[in-house]
Amino acid sequence: MTVIGVDVGGTKIAAGRLADDFAIERTVVIPTPHGGISILESIAGLVADLQSDAAQPVTAVGVGLPATIDSETGLVAHSVHTGMGDFNAAGPLRDLIGLPVHLDNDANLAMLAEHRLGAARGMRTALLLTVGTGIGGGIVINDAIFRGGRGHGAELGHVTVEADGPPCQGNCPGRGCLETMCSGTALTRDFRAFAEANPDSPIGRLHASSSLTSITGLDLAQAGDADAIEVVAAAGRWLGAGIASLCNTFDPDIVLIGGGVSDAGELLLGPARDVYQARALPPTRRAPLALASFGPEAGMVGAGILAADAT
Amino acid sequence: MTVIGVDVGGTKIAAGRLADDFAIERTVVIPTPHGGISILESIAGLVADLQSDAAQPVTAVGVGLPATIDSETGLVAHSVHTGMGDFNAAGPLRDLIGLPVHLDNDANLAMLAEHRLGAARGMRTALLLTVGTGIGGGIVINDAIFRGGRGHGAELGHVTVEADGPPCQGNCPGRGCLETMCSGTALTRDFRAFAEANPDSPIGRLHASSSLTSITGLDLAQAGDADAIEVVAAAGRWLGAGIASLCNTFDPDIVLIGGGVSDAGELLLGPARDVYQARALPPTRRAPLALASFGPEAGMVGAGILAADAT
Repeated sequence: MTVIGVDVGGTKIAAGRLADDFAIERTVVIPTPHGGISILESIAGLVADLQSDAAQPVTAVGVGLPATIDSETGLVAHSVHTGMGDFNAAGPLRDLIGLPVHLDNDANLAMLAEHRLGAARGMRTALLLTVGTGIGGGIVINDAIFRGGRGHGAELGHVTVEADGPPCQGNCPGRGCLETMCSGTALTRDFRAFAEANPDSPIGRLHASSSLTSITGLDLAQAGDADAIEVVAAAGRWLGAGIASLCNTFDPDIVLIGGGVSDAGELLLGPARDVYQARALPPTRRAPLALASFGPEAGMVGAGILAADAT
Repeated sequence: MTVIGVDVGGTKIAAGRLADDFAIERTVVIPTPHGGISILESIAGLVADLQSDAAQPVTAVGVGLPATIDSETGLVAHSVHTGMGDFNAAGPLRDLIGLPVHLDNDANLAMLAEHRLGAARGMRTALLLTVGTGIGGGIVINDAIFRGGRGHGAELGHVTVEADGPPCQGNCPGRGCLETMCSGTALTRDFRAFAEANPDSPIGRLHASSSLTSITGLDLAQAGDADAIEVVAAAGRWLGAGIASLCNTFDPDIVLIGGGVSDAGELLLGPARDVYQARALPPTRRAPLALASFGPEAGMVGAGILAADAT
């Protein structure tokens, strides 16, 4: 069976045609247009492109969105980082594409990919945090994705770790959410604060050249800059405090970290693991904290699995 | 079917004989003895007492413990507030009593009682926080109690709300856990801190008479003392921050507050609701925050339901 997985992000839409074993045959990527209808038309265009040279007919399409889907109404309900909200995407997409279309939250789909084919394979209870611009969450309970009572849960980037901390981002009215403390956006903020306080440091000089972001700051850390390593470690410690909470709640078999910021590897995971292991209740410290298997393709592969499972 | 439900607490053991509809026929209560074997022998004694005048034969016994039970080994694994850990309670209890015995965490059983017969009846996804000396947690997912991957989860009193807050209690190595910020123990601490800073206030005068605890402090609040009301409200706001986290994670149909501190009613729940509603993501604000239906009998009734379900 050939399926297409589509991952809609805030800046780009990536679509891939997946073979029987979910190996990616071909990928196409375009910038995310503005407006829900333009996004749906773009998805339909990408699907048509990927269908055009498929050796076997495409049977279904899965789409990951940076939003929650209401399980009662099927509507795209809420998105912290985009304007998406309260619109029917599945019906119009089916009409545009002429194939079965299945929608889910992007981090739920990344968790699905990790559980079926990646680092959470064989785990009955698992958690995933996708640390990027924001922080997405995925939960596996009894070998199935848990999306919350009506589809809006598993927003693990919006668990509080510091209730009197800074206001959260986008459409989240929380304070001191995990996402506020250790996402890529938080890292950029923290690197810049360090740069402003220490203009003569390597971080400060990078900021003076206007090219300081979480990505370039992480590069500095990976090159061995002690200040940059400490900025990443501080974010990792917040992450660890959040993971301790989540392990006391879910007692999972594994906790995975994915998303772009996970490229920091042990610079992030080491301090996170130290705090998690120091703070979780003894029986809930058993879960390894590890990197996710899939990189940027996690959502796309998960979308393909969703489509195949439903067919 | 007649069953017996036993609730083992840090200070007392309460056992009740329950009719077909889980109505309590008779209750016996004794102080909790020291040591695991003494506790088991006491439970057996209470069961024998309740069997002695039962109109119908007792078919099974359920026991709630302030501890987690490992779902793989069946051992009582870990307890934040007692020394219980790594011992086999079910086998020896069966031998002592001569009836099927089923064990669970006390807050899980309180959740079971609320879900089957109380304020969470008909709710597919529900949360319970039992706010007493500590804070216990209960979770219903897809109409079933969720205990975490291997039985040690649902410790909702040990989700972090202030990662650089005060160290938690008992055997919890966390900091700024919900339990540290708004349990009965936390209230006693906060009332006393207020008293020491304000010795001429009503709270301060109560402290001077050596009778200031969370219970007498709550009495003052219920009598209208503005300072005491504010101490309770501050605890309620921490509770609300934790509930916002939990709703973003579980998207529940209802959130219930039980335990002795819930006697504060809206003095606690009002401020908690305000913060929860202000901070949860819009789609996860839908769950009412309400008082649990069962008072101190929640664990006992839940233990009886556990026993009846397993028979």
